[in-house]
Amino acid sequence: MRFVDAIAAKRDGRSLSPDEIEAFVRGVTDGTIPDYQASALLMAIVLKGMSDAETAWLTDAMVRSGDRVDLSDIPGVKVGKHSTGGVGDKTSIVLAPIAAACGVVVPKMSGRGLGHTGGTLDKLESIPGFRIALSIDEFKSVLRDVGTCIIGQTASLAPADKKLYALRDVTATVESIPLISASIMSKKLAEGSSALILDVKCGDGAFMKDPARARELAASMVSIGTQAGVRTEAVITDMDAPLGCAIGNSLEIIECLETLKGKGPADLTAVVVRLASRMVVLAGLASDDRSASARVAHALESGRALETFARMIERQGGNPRVTENYALLPSAPARVICSASHPGYLTALKAEAIGKASNVLGAGRSTVGEAIDHGVGVVVLAKPGDRVTRGQPLVELHHRDRGVEEALEFCRAAIAIDDEPPPRREKVLGEVR
Amino acid sequence: MRFVDAIAAKRDGRSLSPDEIEAFVRGVTDGTIPDYQASALLMAIVLKGMSDAETAWLTDAMVRSGDRVDLSDIPGVKVGKHSTGGVGDKTSIVLAPIAAACGVVVPKMSGRGLGHTGGTLDKLESIPGFRIALSIDEFKSVLRDVGTCIIGQTASLAPADKKLYALRDVTATVESIPLISASIMSKKLAEGSSALILDVKCGDGAFMKDPARARELAASMVSIGTQAGVRTEAVITDMDAPLGCAIGNSLEIIECLETLKGKGPADLTAVVVRLASRMVVLAGLASDDRSASARVAHALESGRALETFARMIERQGGNPRVTENYALLPSAPARVICSASHPGYLTALKAEAIGKASNVLGAGRSTVGEAIDHGVGVVVLAKPGDRVTRGQPLVELHHRDRGVEEALEFCRAAIAIDDEPPPRREKVLGEVR
Repeated sequence: MRFVDAIAAKRDGRSLSPDEIEAFVRGVTDGTIPDYQASALLMAIVLKGMSDAETAWLTDAMVRSGDRVDLSDIPGVKVGKHSTGGVGDKTSIVLAPIAAACGVVVPKMSGRGLGHTGGTLDKLESIPGFRIALSIDEFKSVLRDVGTCIIGQTASLAPADKKLYALRDVTATVESIPLISASIMSKKLAEGSSALILDVKCGDGAFMKDPARARELAASMVSIGTQAGVRTEAVITDMDAPLGCAIGNSLEIIECLETLKGKGPADLTAVVVRLASRMVVLAGLASDDRSASARVAHALESGRALETFARMIERQGGNPRVTENYALLPSAPARVICSASHPGYLTALKAEAIGKASNVLGAGRSTVGEAIDHGVGVVVLAKPGDRVTRGQPLVELHHRDRGVEEALEFCRAAIAIDDEPPPRREKVLGEVR
Repeated sequence: MRFVDAIAAKRDGRSLSPDEIEAFVRGVTDGTIPDYQASALLMAIVLKGMSDAETAWLTDAMVRSGDRVDLSDIPGVKVGKHSTGGVGDKTSIVLAPIAAACGVVVPKMSGRGLGHTGGTLDKLESIPGFRIALSIDEFKSVLRDVGTCIIGQTASLAPADKKLYALRDVTATVESIPLISASIMSKKLAEGSSALILDVKCGDGAFMKDPARARELAASMVSIGTQAGVRTEAVITDMDAPLGCAIGNSLEIIECLETLKGKGPADLTAVVVRLASRMVVLAGLASDDRSASARVAHALESGRALETFARMIERQGGNPRVTENYALLPSAPARVICSASHPGYLTALKAEAIGKASNVLGAGRSTVGEAIDHGVGVVVLAKPGDRVTRGQPLVELHHRDRGVEEALEFCRAAIAIDDEPPPRREKVLGEVR
């Protein structure tokens, strides 16, 4: 096989064979296929697409490019979770302890990633002492004892994805549903779970801006999981405005703890409860949504979810007393308010701009390895649909004198106030099973 | 400007700006744009196309990537010529002396290229002593004195094209009309002619298999030339069967000489006369086709075209006596015939297969720098449309005991004999001005 023929086949809209896909992934991983051929094929894939079967083969080859975690010696059904990410998306941190408290085993590996706010790992690292770099043995030990553990992805999982992603990033070949699906799913399948729940975000602050594309991505990933023999479901959730009220690392940890205490924002709670219920069903611990939801509600109300989180923190080296004493978390010394310029209904609080506000305050990073300020961030004081008066505080910035003016500008750009209320937007937009 | 944004723009079907195209060509030439970004953009161009304006900017940037030959001190209108190439295409070698004998100045630079038979340069090199590597000063001196000179392209013309072509070749991004047009036209415009005639081949033995694509390529190149201020015309000619009867280097030189003596095959003569007439018009030496054709006929009948060719050969170091004594040219010692298996009409003599027959005998090359056997080749003894009897010789192979069996197989695959005559196919299929 000449690799250039595989590129030509995809260029002409034909399907790649399993052998061609295998050669591609192996060649990219071991460097025998030059980057310029790989990027030409990637662009052809972006523009000509891949079938569900090709996407599943690609994912499988990427999984086999590295190690696969063996969780078979841990009792219980292991249900992995992935979110496509958004502004204020702290879902995993609340969800994992809830599902674990319901009896689901939740092994969770997260990427650090770039973005407006830190990723799940950065948020957890705002807890003093918290370690995200556990060995696989430590990871499994915490999983076995606590029911959940959240660590950083190890480089040995799906190394092909790392190489491909680096190339896609500089060749404008990121935006392809088959490539995005294969990238996400290769890492998730390598984590060794027996079932998967996917939170596909949709809206202004998400990678997928419109519901049709989000549904397409969800369907693609569910198809890959199913073809790999891993029961997979996706929930499509709204990311037009930030999820919850806190954006910023320790601010989000506080919001997670409040949610675990039953006092969280309605939107975050709704999303988490929905995802947790499906995980309970996927784990075979309930046969329908109603009984699953009841089990989730009990885990929250009984305090077992919060207790599970505290145990996870302790086992990962963190100070579990943060669950009761938020003063143990880093915070920013200064506050500034962005208020309503006129009365009306808050019709938009654009997630992306709010995310950028948080980023310029220092809560996120633009280049790999950049340091993060765990204390700064944005707190949303009103949500779209709320009636607001002139001068009413809408957003509060927690800052350390860095980027404040720019952050305020982003906030003003994010806010829209109108005479008419906006159409009601559900937080859970759809599901794919 | 981040170059990845230009890739994304083309991926999304948007036009590139002159600045983006300039950055692309400059970056590819000086190596500051990595190959993997260049190939991703090339694939996006293949699949999303380029407007006539973008293609003209690309060509212009490629011309400016190197030297441009200055022919301004040579009197007369300089009319360049290019053929997209085919099997038995010896047009330039007949055409250049004819047009020069009519008063047109014909500076011709050829590529050596890969292919079934040698290129124009290889054919000329079968003339003992003929030099294709003249300096620009020598080239201009021959042009001034003889009216035409045919040499190899120098590396200093459009070096961006060389780099881009090498990358396109290994990334399945050759087949794009804008990229093909820009590649051809950048070299032609760098040659410094004031007008251009393009012979766009169409059919089985050509890069463009169907007339619609051939016309598209012709229109694209004419548009580029026009936008560059160079009067450009294209003639679309048939390449379903080989052009003329000889395929192979010295065999084709003999056919060229016969054609210059007025005894050439009808199809080759028709194509050459048509192209020469348009060159006479482009040079302003005749105002219409009729008077241009008369001038061309006179150049042939008077022997001035043949004499011009002999002078060109002499000035380029070759032995001009080959024009009268074909025994001075290399020849192959052995002959073998491929005959008609049954009576009927010869309906096809597929150019590509005949070209391959010639290639396996040693007349062409598959890798750069491979040696060529100037003596071997194929002589076609019947043309499509001819009525043939059983056992009638159709093709004669001139060989040196190498590849004969394989060549015969290619010939048999090329031949189709049917009860009904084929539809008549014109040699000149169309023109674009």
